[in-house]
Amino acid sequence: MGTKTVIVGGDAAGMSAAAQIRRVAPSAEVVVFEKTNYASYASCGMPYYIAGDIASHEDLLALSAQEIADRGIDVRYGHAVEEIRPGARRIAGRTRSGQPFGETYDHLVLATGGTAVRPPWWSELEGLFTLRSLEDGIALRTFIDEHRPRRAVVIGAGFIGLEMVESLARRGLEVTLVGRSPHLLGDFDRTFAAPVYDAMRHCGVALNLAQSVQGLAGDSGRITHVETDVERLQADMVLVATGLEPSAGLARAAGLAMGRSGAIAVDDQMQTSRTGIWAAGDCVEVKHVVSGEKVHKPLALTANRTGRIAGDQVGSAVVGRSSAQRFRGTAGSLITQVLDYGLAQTGLSLGEARRAGFDAVSFEREGRSRARYYPGSKPLKTRIVVERRTRRLLGAQMVGEEGVVGRIDALATALFARMTVDEVHHLDLAYAPPFGPVYDAIIDVCGKAALEL
Amino acid sequence: MGTKTVIVGGDAAGMSAAAQIRRVAPSAEVVVFEKTNYASYASCGMPYYIAGDIASHEDLLALSAQEIADRGIDVRYGHAVEEIRPGARRIAGRTRSGQPFGETYDHLVLATGGTAVRPPWWSELEGLFTLRSLEDGIALRTFIDEHRPRRAVVIGAGFIGLEMVESLARRGLEVTLVGRSPHLLGDFDRTFAAPVYDAMRHCGVALNLAQSVQGLAGDSGRITHVETDVERLQADMVLVATGLEPSAGLARAAGLAMGRSGAIAVDDQMQTSRTGIWAAGDCVEVKHVVSGEKVHKPLALTANRTGRIAGDQVGSAVVGRSSAQRFRGTAGSLITQVLDYGLAQTGLSLGEARRAGFDAVSFEREGRSRARYYPGSKPLKTRIVVERRTRRLLGAQMVGEEGVVGRIDALATALFARMTVDEVHHLDLAYAPPFGPVYDAIIDVCGKAALEL
Repeated sequence: MGTKTVIVGGDAAGMSAAAQIRRVAPSAEVVVFEKTNYASYASCGMPYYIAGDIASHEDLLALSAQEIADRGIDVRYGHAVEEIRPGARRIAGRTRSGQPFGETYDHLVLATGGTAVRPPWWSELEGLFTLRSLEDGIALRTFIDEHRPRRAVVIGAGFIGLEMVESLARRGLEVTLVGRSPHLLGDFDRTFAAPVYDAMRHCGVALNLAQSVQGLAGDSGRITHVETDVERLQADMVLVATGLEPSAGLARAAGLAMGRSGAIAVDDQMQTSRTGIWAAGDCVEVKHVVSGEKVHKPLALTANRTGRIAGDQVGSAVVGRSSAQRFRGTAGSLITQVLDYGLAQTGLSLGEARRAGFDAVSFEREGRSRARYYPGSKPLKTRIVVERRTRRLLGAQMVGEEGVVGRIDALATALFARMTVDEVHHLDLAYAPPFGPVYDAIIDVCGKAALEL
Repeated sequence: MGTKTVIVGGDAAGMSAAAQIRRVAPSAEVVVFEKTNYASYASCGMPYYIAGDIASHEDLLALSAQEIADRGIDVRYGHAVEEIRPGARRIAGRTRSGQPFGETYDHLVLATGGTAVRPPWWSELEGLFTLRSLEDGIALRTFIDEHRPRRAVVIGAGFIGLEMVESLARRGLEVTLVGRSPHLLGDFDRTFAAPVYDAMRHCGVALNLAQSVQGLAGDSGRITHVETDVERLQADMVLVATGLEPSAGLARAAGLAMGRSGAIAVDDQMQTSRTGIWAAGDCVEVKHVVSGEKVHKPLALTANRTGRIAGDQVGSAVVGRSSAQRFRGTAGSLITQVLDYGLAQTGLSLGEARRAGFDAVSFEREGRSRARYYPGSKPLKTRIVVERRTRRLLGAQMVGEEGVVGRIDALATALFARMTVDEVHHLDLAYAPPFGPVYDAIIDVCGKAALEL
């Protein structure tokens, strides 16, 4: 059909868009510019690759280079796009070897992703890492294999920080976790998630929470110490995992509208403010299903999904149809494995709910993963956040050794359906002694809320 | 207050009602007549007690006799109620030793439960069992302990039959499962649930499905054989698990309205057709949340919940308030563990949906319990049933070694919210490699349906 789509970025969102365009419009020309040497990789698997659970980084590739080519997608590796000229429908950039390149397009999809935050005290020292691209992951694993560091400091107690604490501890390193918040994962305080704090300490992990990093120190270009406001920590390697900011510079420079979060503004079909340009993945902000606000929640499912929606739009435009696909909201649903525990959340935390203007209150309850009398039954803690007046469920957190993932998903489903705690309390969930008590943890905690509200 | 409530039946529904009455109206007099010698026991735990996972039947008691007394509930064990006289507000019956008894009431709750179906070929032989009351469970385990039977035949491939096949196999018996349906658990056919069929065979269980029992044979009063339309099976013991019918005889004789299913008709607050009489548990029919029809679905959560609702009604009446609690529907949600597999269902099967008048179609998909590359990832099969015109989800079945329980609960939640497959496909569920792929099994199967419908 002679229609060319250029996609900037070849990770989850970009490759989802590319694949969907080819699915909808099999003859469409699709060119993906990827600044690293890898496309379509499972970044969430990197902590397990670094731990050694996964033998090769190639296991993390969702599609091999050959499979990508077989799908008719032309990926240009090592190509960093540096400029978009929407008027000319043209992009330009430079390869890793410094060669300039340019390309025209009919449709453009920006899937530029996010960038690991580099705090003001960042400095270029050997042994200092962030973990964002597969190349970051390979560099980190290679460093451990070659240098056999003894002491690691992980800065940031979000899910990447927590997963990497475990990963590094299992590689035999002495690990210190430094977090600015007194809590793990933002909202998992010492009381709610006590067994997780205990398990980390039992593994020899030092928890330096409620501390802020002041600077780094090095010797002969290699990192040696992390200075916090409380102490000076020895370190043979340091991972900075303090967040992800949207890589929106290209879009901003091209004059596209930005959202309040600093990410690219898009509608629910991933259209930017400029006709013919879509954006998807960690570089965009999307609607939160509970608050209705536009938020920057860079998570894998949203990246894949928004990429697919953008691709469906473009593919449909190519074949002259219209696409019904639209993004229906993020709940910020998240789960992470820390040692034997699953920690999960969906919707708003109590603090987020109050900041969003809800008169919110929270309820906690300890349930069990199996019937009380059934062998192997484990505690399962649930906290829910509820709007007082409407009794609507606004969010939830769970922690436990088993049975967390599906239950948080049931609560996420309830958020999308705007259920009240009374409605969740009366759900008919599946019961058998090996899987829970008759009144499941989520029924039970909503019953407590229904009674006490 | 001088108000007396009589409850007939002291298992899940009856004791839930009793406890709730005392919670709402702490001074109310509550008398429970229980025909067996046990009240408030976890019948769903019996297969694990018989297998030996649970040491004593006392571990299955939710409340000990002392705890029941401490809550101010007067349970009369071994008291079989034989007659209700609603005009006189009086019940009458006979104790196990043959003593007649009678009691007046202000409020009456019928929690008479269900009775294991005895097919026409039933005969009184030693070694022939049903599994309904805790006394049945104790008798079964005692028989195995004392007689060391070698060969067992289990008749009925519902969840009790399946759990008992495993329980008996683990006690070292050679087990044959005879089922009239060619499928396990009604809807789990050989293709959908192949690993379960295989695992049962690997454990030495003979699967005689699509066979119907013609009769039993015995010698000197002990069972020796089961005759099916295909073969004659040797048996030292036989468990008949062909279903549960509502024990509604007392209510029928008292002139209460019966439902089409043969169970007692109640409204969503467990009121029977006669003022002052409530009914709850396995003896009532309740509204199905998908079809809207009244159904007899004798399951533990519904029994506990309807008992609590009836108790809330009665307790509120005693203290002169009104109760807002009402039953919001069953989805028939069910899970059972068979060897290493969880088998679960919620809502309508394809056959049930068509019988209920839906233009229904089903979709299947094999997902995984963890990311493809993450160690220990297991297949997870999902089938959904969808109404063609409205694209509404009507039901689901799942089978897998891990991750089944919560996912079926998320789908049950979607049924209560009357979600379409498009809505489920766009849910924001929690993802991390140890817990599933980016596109979770339930998102994926709904995506397939959304595409193909």
